[in-house]
Amino acid sequence: MADPLRLNLDLDPAPYRALHRPTGARFVEVLDQRALPHAQIMVKLADADTAALAIGSMWVRGAPLIGAVGAYGLAMALDLDPSDAALASAHAALDATRPTAVNLRWALDRVRRAVASLPASERADAAWREADAIVVEDIEINHSIGQHGLQLLREIPRRRSGPINVMTHCNAGALATCGWGTATAPLFLAHADGLPIHVFVSETRPRLQGANLTVWEMNQRGVPHTLFVDSASGLLMRRGDIDVVIVGTDRVACNGDVCNKIGTYDKALAARDNDVPFYVALPSPTIDWSLASGDGIPIESRSADEVLTAVGRDENGNTGKVAIAPAGTRAVNYAFDVTPARLVSGLITERGVARDAQSLSALFARAA
Amino acid sequence: MADPLRLNLDLDPAPYRALHRPTGARFVEVLDQRALPHAQIMVKLADADTAALAIGSMWVRGAPLIGAVGAYGLAMALDLDPSDAALASAHAALDATRPTAVNLRWALDRVRRAVASLPASERADAAWREADAIVVEDIEINHSIGQHGLQLLREIPRRRSGPINVMTHCNAGALATCGWGTATAPLFLAHADGLPIHVFVSETRPRLQGANLTVWEMNQRGVPHTLFVDSASGLLMRRGDIDVVIVGTDRVACNGDVCNKIGTYDKALAARDNDVPFYVALPSPTIDWSLASGDGIPIESRSADEVLTAVGRDENGNTGKVAIAPAGTRAVNYAFDVTPARLVSGLITERGVARDAQSLSALFARAA
Repeated sequence: MADPLRLNLDLDPAPYRALHRPTGARFVEVLDQRALPHAQIMVKLADADTAALAIGSMWVRGAPLIGAVGAYGLAMALDLDPSDAALASAHAALDATRPTAVNLRWALDRVRRAVASLPASERADAAWREADAIVVEDIEINHSIGQHGLQLLREIPRRRSGPINVMTHCNAGALATCGWGTATAPLFLAHADGLPIHVFVSETRPRLQGANLTVWEMNQRGVPHTLFVDSASGLLMRRGDIDVVIVGTDRVACNGDVCNKIGTYDKALAARDNDVPFYVALPSPTIDWSLASGDGIPIESRSADEVLTAVGRDENGNTGKVAIAPAGTRAVNYAFDVTPARLVSGLITERGVARDAQSLSALFARAA
Repeated sequence: MADPLRLNLDLDPAPYRALHRPTGARFVEVLDQRALPHAQIMVKLADADTAALAIGSMWVRGAPLIGAVGAYGLAMALDLDPSDAALASAHAALDATRPTAVNLRWALDRVRRAVASLPASERADAAWREADAIVVEDIEINHSIGQHGLQLLREIPRRRSGPINVMTHCNAGALATCGWGTATAPLFLAHADGLPIHVFVSETRPRLQGANLTVWEMNQRGVPHTLFVDSASGLLMRRGDIDVVIVGTDRVACNGDVCNKIGTYDKALAARDNDVPFYVALPSPTIDWSLASGDGIPIESRSADEVLTAVGRDENGNTGKVAIAPAGTRAVNYAFDVTPARLVSGLITERGVARDAQSLSALFARAA
């Protein structure tokens, strides 16, 4: 019988993959995203501590991807020790790595639920199977998001002739997921389908995921794109350069408030002021049904050093870091912001596009 | 008799100066702003070509400052050749260095007007005197802006106890002018007066004038401050961290539309969405009375290389540049944007605060 994981991975024909489990392996390989776009380095994660480090230190990032890596981390922990205590301890350690994305907790809970009632001897295998299922489902979900988003793109009013101009922020690409990406899935499907698109990519300071990761993905897949500094979002929309904004998200509240990379809210405001539709692409595990609004979402605060420096490739071709402010400068570094639902034109999910909180509940058959 | 230029320069007691003409000299010295905040280097400008290079290559920047440097450049040209042809040629060359700020053209026209009817033998001296007058007036104007802005700050409703939290963008400081700065004048006067303030400084990609220049000025003057990435403007306002925004401008149209560093518009939108007052500080030479609205302002487009790289101090203490995107990436680099008057709470001028286009015209006794 063919390996179901491999078959499903082939659903995204990209020449790269953020996360890969070789058939039957008790480890996974991840693309070290800190080295992109300058070098393509696969790193082996063979124990839960390393998986936690990979998430916390952002070798991997992106809400769906850290969920999947977390799930595998739990499986690795159970390989060593399948006891209740070890399960609880690994769950807690992995969950503590990043506070904002809800997918991580969702994936860890899902694996724990799948193994909790099993005898110790069966737990590890069941955890690996559940993590594999999370990966396969993520790719399928993103493919469905892509199809719904592609339909939207076909219907978007264009401001001028030429390709459809899509703005995105940060990286909600295949590198943030197990395949296809969320915000990028409609773009990749459109490109494959011959619908001409052009992507405006925000650089996304401080960690530059747009410049480093999204640009790299667009290059890998041959999608035309243009980089801009985060501050240019408003001007680009005012100029009529943007037909639609599509971003990803780390957590969506029941009311449709969207938590995503810092700067998303600013882009939503600019979109509203210029009548540019603003869409958020998300797999359903990103919905936090326990949260009434975005006010309750914890916003991760990261090291000031990320703001005080910029990292890239130096003139000798090595990784370099430059200080952009005097040593000792005080800086704040909130990694996410919350965009109120009133600024969101629609949520593109695997089950269709929700225009408001009620239609989101209806899509997933939840009480509104 | 005391040198009137020196007396007036003492109006701003800062330990640094962006532009300095030694008494009687036929050259000026400017602070090379490319080296800040890591090194403080004065560069001598002794001919019009070097003055034009200093403006075009941004050794000096800021609308009022490039006006003054342009004026001195014209005087230097007339020292060599006071003919009509030389005057016209130097005027054109200096005017072509930067397209967006109106002060440059204003200062060049003012010097030309002051010398045009004089015999050739008197032109150069008259030009130097006129340029000196522009410098002295700029410092006086900014001091007046500071006093009007200080009054505003005293009346700003505070969102919490502690200092008044002011957000600014780019550098509209003493480094952008001949002294005091425009947006910073109220802050420096407030600090000197014992009114507790705290300044949130946006880094201002791609050239990082906030991180490099504004942070340095705040350090030099002992004003408490915090650096943030441009994308965090919206979140900071939503959190209630900001009581008021004050920025500078490169050109204001008759209707009150404001052209300023890219990202200003985005900040104005965030301010409006959070009921944060948004003020623009400007000397009257920044008003373009010939422009009905901001739509006619030429937006300078700079090299993509500024977006594809970040410049700072490397780990060896040298100036370093890192590439943040794959080589050959297409990028747009608009240096300015236009904030519509409807988003501006008021224009802080040397004659008071204008709340709308009519009051701006009235302040300067122009027909509305």
